[in-house]
Amino acid sequence: MPGIDFTVFKGTPEGIVQATTHSAAPTGNQILIKITHSGICGTDEHYKEANIALGHEGVGTVQQLGEEVKGFKVGDVVGWGYTHKTCGSCDQCLLGQDQYCQNRELYGVHNLHQGSFGSHAIWDASFVFHVPEGLAPEFAAPLMCGGATVFNIIETYNIHPTDRVGIVGVGGLGHLAVQFLAKMGASVIVFSSTEAKREETIKLGATEFYPTKGVKELKIGKPLDHLIVTTNFLPDWNLFLDIMKPTGTIYPITVSFGNFDIPTFPVVVKGLNIQGSAVASRSVHKKMLDFSARHGIVPIIERFPMTKSGVEEGMAKLRDGKMRYRGVLVA
Amino acid sequence: MPGIDFTVFKGTPEGIVQATTHSAAPTGNQILIKITHSGICGTDEHYKEANIALGHEGVGTVQQLGEEVKGFKVGDVVGWGYTHKTCGSCDQCLLGQDQYCQNRELYGVHNLHQGSFGSHAIWDASFVFHVPEGLAPEFAAPLMCGGATVFNIIETYNIHPTDRVGIVGVGGLGHLAVQFLAKMGASVIVFSSTEAKREETIKLGATEFYPTKGVKELKIGKPLDHLIVTTNFLPDWNLFLDIMKPTGTIYPITVSFGNFDIPTFPVVVKGLNIQGSAVASRSVHKKMLDFSARHGIVPIIERFPMTKSGVEEGMAKLRDGKMRYRGVLVA
Repeated sequence: MPGIDFTVFKGTPEGIVQATTHSAAPTGNQILIKITHSGICGTDEHYKEANIALGHEGVGTVQQLGEEVKGFKVGDVVGWGYTHKTCGSCDQCLLGQDQYCQNRELYGVHNLHQGSFGSHAIWDASFVFHVPEGLAPEFAAPLMCGGATVFNIIETYNIHPTDRVGIVGVGGLGHLAVQFLAKMGASVIVFSSTEAKREETIKLGATEFYPTKGVKELKIGKPLDHLIVTTNFLPDWNLFLDIMKPTGTIYPITVSFGNFDIPTFPVVVKGLNIQGSAVASRSVHKKMLDFSARHGIVPIIERFPMTKSGVEEGMAKLRDGKMRYRGVLVA
Repeated sequence: MPGIDFTVFKGTPEGIVQATTHSAAPTGNQILIKITHSGICGTDEHYKEANIALGHEGVGTVQQLGEEVKGFKVGDVVGWGYTHKTCGSCDQCLLGQDQYCQNRELYGVHNLHQGSFGSHAIWDASFVFHVPEGLAPEFAAPLMCGGATVFNIIETYNIHPTDRVGIVGVGGLGHLAVQFLAKMGASVIVFSSTEAKREETIKLGATEFYPTKGVKELKIGKPLDHLIVTTNFLPDWNLFLDIMKPTGTIYPITVSFGNFDIPTFPVVVKGLNIQGSAVASRSVHKKMLDFSARHGIVPIIERFPMTKSGVEEGMAKLRDGKMRYRGVLVA
């Protein structure tokens, strides 16, 4: 098969640019995908200056297949996220914890062929997921990182339907967490800075909603078994440590570069747990897509064109905290 | 039975004093214990100004029994620690997580009758443990809090014999952790400020020993599955985060009043876990005593007389970081 030229939006030290890249036809276990949609995630900000194609919430259709690919055919609707290039043989890989592969580079995992802001991508078929029937491509895109990140917590750390689960922040991740937890029958207690998102959050399945701005003490009745912190800044821990059940777990899932600054004493004497968690293994990712399709999990999205200005506009809106709730670039 | 007068060493705003207290005979499910030994623990410092009998690593012999007590007889060698006064009906109590009872007060759990620095103590039999045969009372005492605290991590959080377990600090807790882990067949990797304790620590069962003072980067070969931090100050996290395996767990078990100040980024992207843990449930406490007796776990102790000056001297030596490795008051 002939190689093709395709367009990507990539980072540079000066900012985002449109670039053209050339690929030989996909070989071996590779798939060439025509991108139809991509979610816009906060972590894209961290790659704006890197020489890589941006985006990691991709959905598209299979256009060409390498000669060894099994399980995909031209025209299939597929998606991809963060996890790829695993070594397959470290302890984490052997345990199926792909996203923590010890031989994966944390940065620079993408190149010009593996972003989702652009016209095409080329991936190893092992890291591409079928989008299940009943899940529209534009809604599947935000699940590839945002959805995977919150679902991983529920599935990997055994959140139970009988648990009281707190969610700090109703954004791209938070509004998906509410839906997943509501559909599994858990009590969903949401904390947002103001009252603005109350009605919409309750409609998504939240059982309680508390504004936190200016609040000195939270009164929520029964304490929380879990607290998922989805905001891009860490909260006032004293406010939340008081409402954690002993042995409860806090999940700070936002990638930030400061310190936790969490008081040691209550964590130790209450036997609390702070669990870091990053995206999802492929096993959990597949379950997440299936669960979303079965239960009609639908991200609330804002659409932007898959152009340089669309990319810039979408990223700026997210950066300004104005996205309701996930931006999706549409080809 | 007639009441008795007994002596305790208690906190006051001005410092430790000897006091006399009176007790009616033990009633109901209570036991009157003649104290023979008590460990000295760093957390005793926090109670020096409180109007309570100090000490919570008690061992003694049963002297009188309330009319409802079952399973104990006069002359039995028994011990007690921190856990008592649980409500018996909150979620934690129902799960057997006694030490995290939601209706227990964190401070002021002791009164004049329930310390271990003194001549006698009166306890509800439900919170008193038989010291197993083969475990000398003076060695059993430091296990009642120090031993329970480190063993709880191993038992509750499922540390495996195949794991590489790091221990920061070789003191009262650390030197017991080394022994427990060695006897269960785990790899025990010890970090101490200097070389001073290398030989003794290896003799206790450590497999590797690394001094950390002035060290900018730790080179330990394979990374750690677990890291138990037993020092009374928190370490340089960057040093240790680099040697944690993805999904590994850090246990800060010292009661301190600062913040964690742990960098967020590596915790999230490596899926690390920070697990608070306080003493042990009664179920785990019993297993710890049995395990210690079966395997000849022997704390290395320094003896002090059970007098006001013995209490003061022992506490001062611990405070100054000079205890090798646990102080025990002997009646």
